[in-house]
Parts: sequence; structure tokens; C-alpha cells
Amino acid sequence: MKHRPIKASILTQNLSHNLFKVKKMTNLTPTWAVVKANAYGHGLKPALKAFQDSEGIALLDMEHATLARELGWIGRVLLLEGIFTEDDLDDVVNLSCEIVIHHEQQVTWLIQWLGRQSLQNVNQFLTNCPIWLKLNSGMNRLGFKSAQYGVSYEILKQMGCTVHHLTHFANADDLQVLPSVKDQWEIFSKATQYAEGLKSAANSAAIIGHFFTHADMTRPGIMLYGASPSGKYEDIAHLGLKAGMNLRSEIIALQELQAGDTVGYGSQYQAKKNTKIAVIACGYADGYPRSAPNDTPVWIGKTGHILEGQIAPLVGRVSMDMMMVDVSNVSYAQIGSPVELWGELNPIDNVAFPAKTVGYELMCGLANRVKQEIL
Amino acid sequence: MKHRPIKASILTQNLSHNLFKVKKMTNLTPTWAVVKANAYGHGLKPALKAFQDSEGIALLDMEHATLARELGWIGRVLLLEGIFTEDDLDDVVNLSCEIVIHHEQQVTWLIQWLGRQSLQNVNQFLTNCPIWLKLNSGMNRLGFKSAQYGVSYEILKQMGCTVHHLTHFANADDLQVLPSVKDQWEIFSKATQYAEGLKSAANSAAIIGHFFTHADMTRPGIMLYGASPSGKYEDIAHLGLKAGMNLRSEIIALQELQAGDTVGYGSQYQAKKNTKIAVIACGYADGYPRSAPNDTPVWIGKTGHILEGQIAPLVGRVSMDMMMVDVSNVSYAQIGSPVELWGELNPIDNVAFPAKTVGYELMCGLANRVKQEIL
Repeated sequence: MKHRPIKASILTQNLSHNLFKVKKMTNLTPTWAVVKANAYGHGLKPALKAFQDSEGIALLDMEHATLARELGWIGRVLLLEGIFTEDDLDDVVNLSCEIVIHHEQQVTWLIQWLGRQSLQNVNQFLTNCPIWLKLNSGMNRLGFKSAQYGVSYEILKQMGCTVHHLTHFANADDLQVLPSVKDQWEIFSKATQYAEGLKSAANSAAIIGHFFTHADMTRPGIMLYGASPSGKYEDIAHLGLKAGMNLRSEIIALQELQAGDTVGYGSQYQAKKNTKIAVIACGYADGYPRSAPNDTPVWIGKTGHILEGQIAPLVGRVSMDMMMVDVSNVSYAQIGSPVELWGELNPIDNVAFPAKTVGYELMCGLANRVKQEIL
Repeated sequence: MKHRPIKASILTQNLSHNLFKVKKMTNLTPTWAVVKANAYGHGLKPALKAFQDSEGIALLDMEHATLARELGWIGRVLLLEGIFTEDDLDDVVNLSCEIVIHHEQQVTWLIQWLGRQSLQNVNQFLTNCPIWLKLNSGMNRLGFKSAQYGVSYEILKQMGCTVHHLTHFANADDLQVLPSVKDQWEIFSKATQYAEGLKSAANSAAIIGHFFTHADMTRPGIMLYGASPSGKYEDIAHLGLKAGMNLRSEIIALQELQAGDTVGYGSQYQAKKNTKIAVIACGYADGYPRSAPNDTPVWIGKTGHILEGQIAPLVGRVSMDMMMVDVSNVSYAQIGSPVELWGELNPIDNVAFPAKTVGYELMCGLANRVKQEIL
């Protein structure tokens, strides 16, 4: 049975390939493969398979940490935002997670929780659940400022915790904006200079562009899924990363426009000459960005042979379930022709960029109604 | 267990209330309640309950038509894009659906399919599965142009089908753009003037603004979910529609900025004075738009009393799992304070509009990882 033809294929081998590239680029520095947000929309299950050579995975939701253990993940698990309540620590210890601590409230919860545990539980926590203390080195999102960082470090050490060190860069993908990676790295180095423990700072952009930040563990995210941290495909084209997902559909209708005819809601596109328009079974309720303007690239393949195809321009406003493409120059376009919205033939960054967003948002926004197959 | 605190509540009573408003506004004209895209993100199950007084529901996916019947929906079901393959007609007849026919290919599939059915199946189709022939009256997305419309109508009538008439407006929410509703309505009236059958044309915007289009069945969509067809809350504020969904979360961290400090990726927001920043557990991987700029409204409530609250401005770029809000003027803001991203206290249109999109996209884009409760 076929029904509505849109489908996403998760390319497990490509995900593995991308991890291999990260490892090569960082001289085998241990990695936290970031699999939050359901592995950036790719699904936790294929991601765990693809990233089995990573020392650890990093995510947010306790549900997904639980699922990872149920799926047999025996490597390290880092909760990137740590605990949201004191009771979350029950799960942390049961699942042997490592946790970020980014705020005094979390230290308080930990002290209170340890105070009401059995000795066995306390020991289990201290042995199996290292803490990654997060420094706010200039992003001003999560983390302690330097002065408070040292205080929290001392408290946690006195409690017997293993404490590692973590920070996050605001502008690793853009050299023009302050604070720079170098600024933040210096603050991080200074705040941690007399402390024991491992250090982790590098996200994808820093892995690619700032080798001095690789430290003890990197945290690759977007690059594992084959998209660019900066949002520009040119910035990663030379790295040999591969798309983690193909989003494909089909042409479901054709329209012949005459010069002057308009297309879609708001009649935003007007044909300058006679134009053949293809209607594609994909809209913003599938996760394609409504903000994609005229000329956003769409790959149109030959029926039965998607690899034989070409790029054609989006025209008119993307609607909830459909979008229109000018196929005047695609002689073979017909009902049933396969289409790639993004993937191996049509990099996701080249869709995200004209739509004024980043590949991250598109991957994560893939709708539940789009059937997924794991390859 | 609490974990990450973001949650969406589906407000079934409000959805029912909105249908009642539509009925009142249209003198009880029969409705196709549009529940495609998983009821615009609200879930098919609560939508069916909320819209039980609607004569029919309209959607796209055969899976959801099947689910609606399984959930006990005995009213009419319209497949808004009709069939995607010839075999889809097996399901159409089994589920007693009505189908849009918008393209000659679909007529061909129907002829072929009928030719290989038992007499019983043919009778069942002709009796239980009326066709809604779709006219392209100027939107140039789906539908026959007028000349071909008449031909297809005659073919379908000769086959013994019940044929009704349907078209869709491109600019019902904007009087400044051509083709106008009046232009399209005239083309529709002319193309169907000698034909038998019912007529349906009015989407939400036409229900609200163009009474002459109400015809035999209306097709309310976005207004059932309490948002504005035009994307501007002012355009529906007088109608008494209610939000279909509350998206709520909590403050998970606070930061004290000094004048000159920047916030978030790209350091897009710079504090002009000492500023208290709250970090909210909601990001674009939850479905909040990354394009939301500084000053997008966020409702901050008192702990335990979300109704006692006020609007505060978003600052900095929305990240995957978090966003930041300036709470300098919200004295009670603390870790755990409840927050409404959109809903009854903070209309979704007021978030969508500054983010340069529409409530439709936000509702449909609600991520799977956000837990839903049905109220």
C-alpha cells in the first residue's frame, strides 16, 4: 500500500561515516555523540547503532536515557542539562548517567538527595555518576560564572564527587562575533587551571575550526548528521560528511500556467511566461519550512531512477501539505516522479539557508506523520 | 516523575466551542471540520471528540481516515487530495470515504479500478463514496481548469458517480491580492452552473470574511484551533475563538547579565543595563520557531499560579532546547516558574507573527518529544 508518498530514510551508514570523520579530525579524541532531540530527528535507535564507536552519547530527556539503556547502550551517557528535579537523581543513579550541573539549585538538590540515600546508593552515585560542572564562559545561557564555579567545584569535591569541566561556545561558527572561541577558551582554562578532571568544550563548529579546543572529549552534534554548523553548505563541502537523512516524495499533480498566472496562497509567484508547475506531496506540516522562498532547490528525478535528475526551483508559498516547483525545464516530470526535498542529492543546508534557518531546525522538525525507514 | 518540564495541553472544550462559533457564523451550514496534519498538531482523537457535531471531517492520509473509523467516527470523511494510487480506492470503499478528484490521472485510476471490481463493490462505491470534483479557480495548485472540469464532470456522471463541487481560495485572508475571492467565486459559479451536486468553497478566512461563499458545506480549519487565518491575532480577536492548545514549560536557570553582556548563539542580544535572564526549557526542537526575534512575547507565571503572570520579552537566538527571556521586570521569576509559550494566556498568533510565520506552522510543528495531555 502506498498512499501519500512522502518518506524519510535514515542513512545509518552515513551517520557512522560522519563519526569516523570526527574521530579522524580530532586524532581519536573521545566523543560525546550528541543524540538529543531524538538524534536530531533521526531516531535514537539508528543513532545508537551508527555511533557505537563513540565513547558516550549526550542527550537531555531521561526518557531517552532510559530508552538508550533498554536498547542495550552500555557506553557513557551524559545528561546535558542535568537534573530538572531532585527526584531525577533516582534515575541518574539507576541508569548510571553522568550529569551536567549548571546552577546552584542543582547542587542543592544533589546535597539534599544524597542526604536521604542509603550508603549503597551514595557509593553508587559517587562511583558511576561523574559530574560535568558547566562554566558560563560567555554564552550566558547555562552555567556558573567563574567565581561561583570554583565554589561549586569545591563543594562537590568535598562531597566525594568526580568532577569534570564543560563549557559551550556561542560563536564557534562565526569568527566575526564576540565573545570569540579564544576569549571563551581562556576563561574556561583559567577557571579550571587548578582543578582536577577532564575538559570538554568543542561542539561541531569548534571541532572543525578550532583544534585547540578538542581537549579530553568533544561533543559533535550537527556534523554527525551531515549538515553545517554555520548553516552554509560551502563551509563543510570539503569535509566529506554525508547526509544522515533523505526526505523524498513525489509529484502528485501538474498545472500549466500562462504568463501572468499566479500560484498558491497569497499569489506570491507570478509566471513570466507559460510555465509547467509540479505539485509535490510535502508541506510545512511535514516539516518543510514555510519560509522557503521562490528558487529554493528541489531535486526532481526520473520515475524509477531518482539519481537521474536535476534541481528545479520552488515557486509560491509552501502550504501545509503541498509545495509547487517550476518544472518547465524538466522534460520528464510527470505524476509519480520522485522528488528529494533534502538529502544526499540536495544538501539540507541548501534548503535551510534560503529559508533563513539551519539544517538543525529542519531535521528536528521532521513531522511524525512522515513515515521513516531505517537503512 | 517530572523530568524536562515542557508539556502541551489539548483543550477539547475550546475546540468544541470554536466549532460552535463556526456553526453560528454560518447559520448552521454543514461543515467539513478539517483535521488533516493530525488535527493541526492537536491529535485526531481529541479532535474527533471535540468536533462530533460536525457533519464530516476532512483529511489527507488514509492512515488517519482508518484511525478515525477505528475510533468510532461514523460521520462523513473527505479525503482532501483524493487518491494517490489506484489501489487507494480499495480503502476508500472499505472506509466509506468521499474523495476529491483534482486531476485526470485520478479519473483514469477510478475507471481502471471500477473495471476490475465486483458488481457489489461498484455499487458500494457509487452509493457510499461521492466525489468532490475540484476546480482550479485561480490558486493553480490542485484542480481542473474550467474547460476540463466540465469534461471530467460528464465522464464521472456517466459512470454513475455522485459528483459534488469544490474549489479553494488563494487570498481569502487578504483583500489586496488578486485573484480575489469574488473572482474565484465567479469562475466556480460559472463552471458549475449547469451541474448537479453540492458546493463547498469556504475555508476559515472565507467563513469569517466572505459570507456569500458559505454554500452547501464549509471547510473550517485554522479557526477551529483558535488561530487566525491571516496570521494576525487582531483579525480574530473579536470572534471569541479560544486556543486549542497550551504549550507550557518552566524556568530552569537564571543568569545575571551586566551591561554589554551578550546572550546565546551568535550573541545576537546585548544587555543595555544589568539584566536578569531566565532560561526556559523550550527550543526549536520542541517546535518553537527559531525565527522568533527579540521581544517575542512569553508569559511568565508565579510558581503554582500560572494565571497570575505577565508577558516578558524573548532575548537572543532560540536554541535547540532552550530559549532566554528578559525577566528583569518579573520580580517573582525563579527556577520552576511556569511559562506559557503559546495558548490561552499568550495567543499563538502573537508568537507566529513576529517569527514571520503563521499559527498553522507552529501547531503542526509541535514536536513528538513534547508530552501531550488531553483536557
